[in-house]
Amino acid sequence: MTGIVVTNPPHADREAVDALGQHGIATIHEAQGRTGLLGSHLRPIQRGVRVSGNAVTATVAPGDNTMIGVAVEQCGDGDILVVVPTAPCDVGYFGDLLATTLKARGVRGLIIEAGVRDVADLNEMGFPVWAKAVSAEGCSKGVLGDVNVPISIAGRIVSPGDVIVADDDGVVAVPRRNAAAVVAAAQAREEKEARARARYLAGEIALDVNNMRQMLDQAGVRYLDHADWLKEHEKGSDG
Amino acid sequence: MTGIVVTNPPHADREAVDALGQHGIATIHEAQGRTGLLGSHLRPIQRGVRVSGNAVTATVAPGDNTMIGVAVEQCGDGDILVVVPTAPCDVGYFGDLLATTLKARGVRGLIIEAGVRDVADLNEMGFPVWAKAVSAEGCSKGVLGDVNVPISIAGRIVSPGDVIVADDDGVVAVPRRNAAAVVAAAQAREEKEARARARYLAGEIALDVNNMRQMLDQAGVRYLDHADWLKEHEKGSDG
Amino acid sequence: MTGIVVTNPPHADREAVDALGQHGIATIHEAQGRTGLLGSHLRPIQRGVRVSGNAVTATVAPGDNTMIGVAVEQCGDGDILVVVPTAPCDVGYFGDLLATTLKARGVRGLIIEAGVRDVADLNEMGFPVWAKAVSAEGCSKGVLGDVNVPISIAGRIVSPGDVIVADDDGVVAVPRRNAAAVVAAAQAREEKEARARARYLAGEIALDVNNMRQMLDQAGVRYLDHADWLKEHEKGSDG
Amino acid sequence: MTGIVVTNPPHADREAVDALGQHGIATIHEAQGRTGLLGSHLRPIQRGVRVSGNAVTATVAPGDNTMIGVAVEQCGDGDILVVVPTAPCDVGYFGDLLATTLKARGVRGLIIEAGVRDVADLNEMGFPVWAKAVSAEGCSKGVLGDVNVPISIAGRIVSPGDVIVADDDGVVAVPRRNAAAVVAAAQAREEKEARARARYLAGEIALDVNNMRQMLDQAGVRYLDHADWLKEHEKGSDG
Amino acid sequence: MTGIVVTNPPHADREAVDALGQHGIATIHEAQGRTGLLGSHLRPIQRGVRVSGNAVTATVAPGDNTMIGVAVEQCGDGDILVVVPTAPCDVGYFGDLLATTLKARGVRGLIIEAGVRDVADLNEMGFPVWAKAVSAEGCSKGVLGDVNVPISIAGRIVSPGDVIVADDDGVVAVPRRNAAAVVAAAQAREEKEARARARYLAGEIALDVNNMRQMLDQAGVRYLDHADWLKEHEKGSDG
Amino acid sequence: MTGIVVTNPPHADREAVDALGQHGIATIHEAQGRTGLLGSHLRPIQRGVRVSGNAVTATVAPGDNTMIGVAVEQCGDGDILVVVPTAPCDVGYFGDLLATTLKARGVRGLIIEAGVRDVADLNEMGFPVWAKAVSAEGCSKGVLGDVNVPISIAGRIVSPGDVIVADDDGVVAVPRRNAAAVVAAAQAREEKEARARARYLAGEIALDVNNMRQMLDQAGVRYLDHADWLKEHEKGSDG
Repeated sequence: MTGIVVTNPPHADREAVDALGQHGIATIHEAQGRTGLLGSHLRPIQRGVRVSGNAVTATVAPGDNTMIGVAVEQCGDGDILVVVPTAPCDVGYFGDLLATTLKARGVRGLIIEAGVRDVADLNEMGFPVWAKAVSAEGCSKGVLGDVNVPISIAGRIVSPGDVIVADDDGVVAVPRRNAAAVVAAAQAREEKEARARARYLAGEIALDVNNMRQMLDQAGVRYLDHADWLKEHEKGSDG
Repeated sequence: MTGIVVTNPPHADREAVDALGQHGIATIHEAQGRTGLLGSHLRPIQRGVRVSGNAVTATVAPGDNTMIGVAVEQCGDGDILVVVPTAPCDVGYFGDLLATTLKARGVRGLIIEAGVRDVADLNEMGFPVWAKAVSAEGCSKGVLGDVNVPISIAGRIVSPGDVIVADDDGVVAVPRRNAAAVVAAAQAREEKEARARARYLAGEIALDVNNMRQMLDQAGVRYLDHADWLKEHEKGSDG
Repeated sequence: MTGIVVTNPPHADREAVDALGQHGIATIHEAQGRTGLLGSHLRPIQRGVRVSGNAVTATVAPGDNTMIGVAVEQCGDGDILVVVPTAPCDVGYFGDLLATTLKARGVRGLIIEAGVRDVADLNEMGFPVWAKAVSAEGCSKGVLGDVNVPISIAGRIVSPGDVIVADDDGVVAVPRRNAAAVVAAAQAREEKEARARARYLAGEIALDVNNMRQMLDQAGVRYLDHADWLKEHEKGSDG
Repeated sequence: MTGIVVTNPPHADREAVDALGQHGIATIHEAQGRTGLLGSHLRPIQRGVRVSGNAVTATVAPGDNTMIGVAVEQCGDGDILVVVPTAPCDVGYFGDLLATTLKARGVRGLIIEAGVRDVADLNEMGFPVWAKAVSAEGCSKGVLGDVNVPISIAGRIVSPGDVIVADDDGVVAVPRRNAAAVVAAAQAREEKEARARARYLAGEIALDVNNMRQMLDQAGVRYLDHADWLKEHEKGSDG
Repeated sequence: MTGIVVTNPPHADREAVDALGQHGIATIHEAQGRTGLLGSHLRPIQRGVRVSGNAVTATVAPGDNTMIGVAVEQCGDGDILVVVPTAPCDVGYFGDLLATTLKARGVRGLIIEAGVRDVADLNEMGFPVWAKAVSAEGCSKGVLGDVNVPISIAGRIVSPGDVIVADDDGVVAVPRRNAAAVVAAAQAREEKEARARARYLAGEIALDVNNMRQMLDQAGVRYLDHADWLKEHEKGSDG
Repeated sequence: MTGIVVTNPPHADREAVDALGQHGIATIHEAQGRTGLLGSHLRPIQRGVRVSGNAVTATVAPGDNTMIGVAVEQCGDGDILVVVPTAPCDVGYFGDLLATTLKARGVRGLIIEAGVRDVADLNEMGFPVWAKAVSAEGCSKGVLGDVNVPISIAGRIVSPGDVIVADDDGVVAVPRRNAAAVVAAAQAREEKEARARARYLAGEIALDVNNMRQMLDQAGVRYLDHADWLKEHEKGSDG
């Protein structure tokens, strides 16, 4: 299937995309039943930024970024470009020129399971990137991959048109048709967490807030004063 | 021994705990004979922070943070929670709600050989964390571990009541009963380093400040002008 | 060859050294034909800094930093100290005292494929370091290595007198006698990139700026509307 | 989508499955246009074995192998069980008892991006396994995943009913409906390689067998006698 | 505490040591409540071997194996030497000469969280080793560690006199005073597994053997025919 | 310097090459003053094999093995091909066809800091390979590197004509002009080790064979009976 460029893929509803961008990715991940989180080796180049957008996907060959150039043409306002090499390769696939062209098209960020370069420029330009590595090593041109097909990146399947949300915690993908439902679930979760936070600030603890004591008791938790533990421990060890 | 929660473990002397917090961890590590340093894969989530405190220890199962909830109840003012999974697992065991409850109890920080999440919130709250990974992946509940028993974390044995000091260089543990002696040794070391620093600033070098020339001579160091080295090197190689 | 200290090695032309420091390392790496880049596991301790200088090289034994002390004496104004252990070892070979003495001698930075410590102090002092790890674990003394011989560090051969440039993207080495030629090539590349950047800002894309469409066509890129792709895909899979 | 168990998924044609098992995975990977290869961190527990089969897929929670038990019931003669944790976890999800039950059902092997245990027993039983790690650390029970949905494992999307082939080189997946076409392409490739091998055995080299000399000449390869290279090199370097 | 050599530490009962050696480490790990397993990065140099013995512990400095020489004198018949460096270092701490001296003293094996060399000789001699790495890089002499104190190795605390069992699955430690109880628990577990194995061989599956169906039902497992899943899936996604 | 192919580089003396092949690489590494060892991530594909030969060096681009084809023509009887990618890349650069052509030319083995494939065939053919990874992922063609220039591989500088020796312990390089001297030193070392081995077999230990007791005493080793250690330890800790 190499060399396929799919045009006009479906998009998630823009309102849902933007609403998802109001929530941290940990919340979204929980809100969709603990699914969709990309591997934690994708780290933000800039700190303190959160973006949400519509996924444009691309695969690239090891050491060759031809298909990023091709994917650029398929990217538009509100999109996030999501790139994976067909075999692990950490060279710098992306730098300030590609960021310039994406930013000019209204693209909101880049997710790449590979390396990027010109990171000082990327920071200065304010173009958000989540990557696996920083490397100034450049790419060749000429080997094909695909654009806008479903990809396997950082342990998850991402399809074009899925919603991507990324922040300091990493990157999460929300299937396109679930976007609105996940917005609602995320809001509900945040409201519930706000109530819990108030109780924690007032000095309550999770054992009570979440009614965990009976479960712990049944599971066999045993409280032992340190003096008693020492006696028991000395029977079983010398160290 | 799973499911044991030891209550009322001994504490290090608060004055010594606070005095240790006046020193960098490299100094403390040297001051106690190059022992006690936890592995360098535990990195600070925030930069520029140093904390010292009394260790409350906990073990957790892979992907299950039940025992952090249990440990919270054993944590109080001046403590640092120290958590290790029973098998390596980098999911997010700890986030802003747990930080809220620990902060409300006067806990000074978290050391965890696993992942944490909500790092933007942790930064904003100013709750200091040293962790192995950042991951938004959540935890299940229901599998037991232990609280306040000696643990093996990042290559060191840490017992409840040991003193933990952590800064940008990493994390060091000081056995409870050695705390006062290490304070004294750290102060002596810093004074010695201050004298050396003054000499370095004045242009002296370590070969003289530390009297290393005779040792080097005996070990066989040989100074060769570059022209002479080139001649010798050409006899042994072509490259 | 252990224990050799080569004195008075050649130096790159200072003007070329300083001119190279005007360019990002990605540019320099490209300007010298995609060569000379050190491995991306060498990361800056401080962000937002760029240095260039003349390489003073040293090898050290695992866990022993004796030869850094010896190398200090061979370092002077405009130099960068470049250190590699003879076997991988991430303990802290370098801290604030060594930084003080190097800074006092006009040394511009340290490149080390190992660990460093006292990073808060290094940041405060403004002494730039690129390292593989941060570790407070100290070193022993007494095992020899070499100073100012060609070394293999992070996948590259670096000779004393080569030019080192380092920034947020990593570290690049330029052979001494090529320095002036690389300055010229880097300037030419930046001018070319400036022209391309202007076109990208105006909305053009790389497929046109770099005349890639014919190459892609010959390589077999195939554009498919999403509806057509779905039909084709359904013939080949169910998921 | 957690907790979904899909029953009666489609199967690849058994004849094509068995025919694919006649080819090495490098050949199959090439035959389908360099696609489908799972990451090289999946290694065979036994050497010298090759299997092919119909994929039954499962996701498991970190440290919890409940869904392998559920997946067993969906596995039958000629199948290969393909398992991925929802977050990286290398504990031992699989041992001799699960191998016994799978073998009794005619299952041909296990592919798992996690750990396995009882490897001496697995070898003795002759149940083939490709895994990421060996660990005796056991699993908990009670957290759900999915069975027979498309999964992302080791960098690839695998759907139930895809063909899995695995040997000493690793693991490849062939989309179900492409199986027959890939068999034909693999046979064609092996015939072509046999012709090339005969020429290599006769002393010819790839530059001639593959007509590479003109391409190399155009790309700028330059042959230099060592004496000439030395002269050129000395102008550019000292080392 | 560096430089301490503890003599005459307690030993586990020899009968229990030998009885533990009759069980695989996965069984022993389960039999003592899923505790005591060392990290899976300790791998056997030889395959197909199992040993059990009384732990003699030692710490060594990075790149320095002085204390292995010191520990040899504390090792005797039925012991296993357990070594950890004070900071991670994978050079070759141990080779055929040390194996010769240990074998001559009746020592049953070596566990080391570092590198070993002369592995062809070790295989030929039949001296069993579990190590983190193979490296021919040698060690210096002169830096002290400790012998026969409790150590933290591969994520576990091991005290002198604990029982070590190691096989193809890795390494487990059993606290000295628990040895007899763990023997009994391991035997009980193996008997239970034998009964389960017979049922699996007869075609039963774990869902029934372990009565898991009700739990799964309550947890929300949902069985869906593939045709129904496809309809549901198409509502939620396009790929 | 990309695209340079150096012809007719010097060769090490064949007698010395073959004599070095009589020694294990740990012995050779020691015999040349603990230098020349390549990193331990280069592992043998076959076990129990040792080869020595004259280095032919090559660099390759990430994911492109063009220059291996070019290097084949520069390889002849008694050579070992030594290959490094210009940036880390673990795809399969080498398989059974390249092995066939090298074997037909009398080449003794391959050292590659990257991946290889067709490992079952390589084993069957008896062509020895030391590699960083096994991967069936294939390479593109068309990007240049260099042949027979000095390279940096696995932490060492290797020049064409250097002697390579490889066995189960890894890979060592001996500078061409040092080969005869290293042969002599290796023989001397083996004779010395044989004498030591006889003493170890007779029950002596290294503390006496190597006269280490005085050094240990001066360094501060302190022997403590376990009962005394327990008393001392209890003063310093509770655990």
